[in-house]
Amino acid sequence: MMERLQEQMAFIMEIDKLKNIVRRTKLIYADRNENDAEHSWHLAVMAMNLVEYANEPDLDIGKVMQMVLIHDIVEIDAGDTYAYDVSGHADKYERERQAAERIFGLLPADQKQAYVDLWQEFEGGISAEAKFASALDRLQPLIHNYKNQGSIWAANGITSTQVRERSNKIREGSEALWRYAQEIIDQSIAQGFLPE
Amino acid sequence: MMERLQEQMAFIMEIDKLKNIVRRTKLIYADRNENDAEHSWHLAVMAMNLVEYANEPDLDIGKVMQMVLIHDIVEIDAGDTYAYDVSGHADKYERERQAAERIFGLLPADQKQAYVDLWQEFEGGISAEAKFASALDRLQPLIHNYKNQGSIWAANGITSTQVRERSNKIREGSEALWRYAQEIIDQSIAQGFLPE
Repeated sequence: MMERLQEQMAFIMEIDKLKNIVRRTKLIYADRNENDAEHSWHLAVMAMNLVEYANEPDLDIGKVMQMVLIHDIVEIDAGDTYAYDVSGHADKYERERQAAERIFGLLPADQKQAYVDLWQEFEGGISAEAKFASALDRLQPLIHNYKNQGSIWAANGITSTQVRERSNKIREGSEALWRYAQEIIDQSIAQGFLPE
Repeated sequence: MMERLQEQMAFIMEIDKLKNIVRRTKLIYADRNENDAEHSWHLAVMAMNLVEYANEPDLDIGKVMQMVLIHDIVEIDAGDTYAYDVSGHADKYERERQAAERIFGLLPADQKQAYVDLWQEFEGGISAEAKFASALDRLQPLIHNYKNQGSIWAANGITSTQVRERSNKIREGSEALWRYAQEIIDQSIAQGFLPE
């Protein structure tokens, strides 16, 4: 048993590094960028809070929570790829697949497989759980960018067309949250936070 | 529906402040203190990982995850009370109860009640879920302090007697994790990170 626990603890210590992976999203109440651990926590609470808006009423919310908690762990090795970085996305999957192999590979074999499967299910975006998790992952930075008057959008030259395109995927997980996202985008344009 | 969603979103935006509540624990791989959002994320992943060691094999792991995700939200108003701060603990519960009322009170009434209940269940420490959540909450900073060669213990004049006393509660949630904690404490003393 102790060897198994030592492996699990090695993983638990390793993932402390997720707290150092900085995203291109600013916090609402502090002048610094968010890190992946904070972001993952926020998505998990959103999952608890907003599950009633999922398109699929019978989805497994525990699985959604697990997915969002581990979905960015691969970025410890692969780094954060900005949502609008086209060239970064070209080799993103391969970089992240190798990261999943190494980091989840610290765990005992049964848990490694379960985590790799969960991460791949999220990336695949096919299951109801993956669609809802992905909807939250796209909604959260939209809210942050809106509350920060679009400063990150402006710094990266992002337009409303790009934001609308990215937010369209929210619809696959939740029609209601997609409508809410459209309102946020409309407000962002009206208030001059996002160029048309 | 939109009014309900607006209330939920007000809560989701408000809890962004948890990312600014700094704990008295250092990260393992960066020279800064951890914040409550990162800590809560870490506990939720530990819950997923370590559930097999819970004393109560039939506990509801989804509930444990929800508990650890929201257990520190009251600190947005009440601040972080250091584990070894005796005077701070005298009025801790009342400060936190008022915080729970205000912050969970941003949510629709049904969700507010559910979150207040969940937080009080954690604080009460009676249910199998609360005991396991509390075990994780005590084990995580122990690991961080050990990996940081006891720098926070030293800065606050903490002795092995205090750390042992605090870690004893782990046993109520998990005998196996309690034994692991004892090993970490023994190692910390042997390596001079913690005065006997």
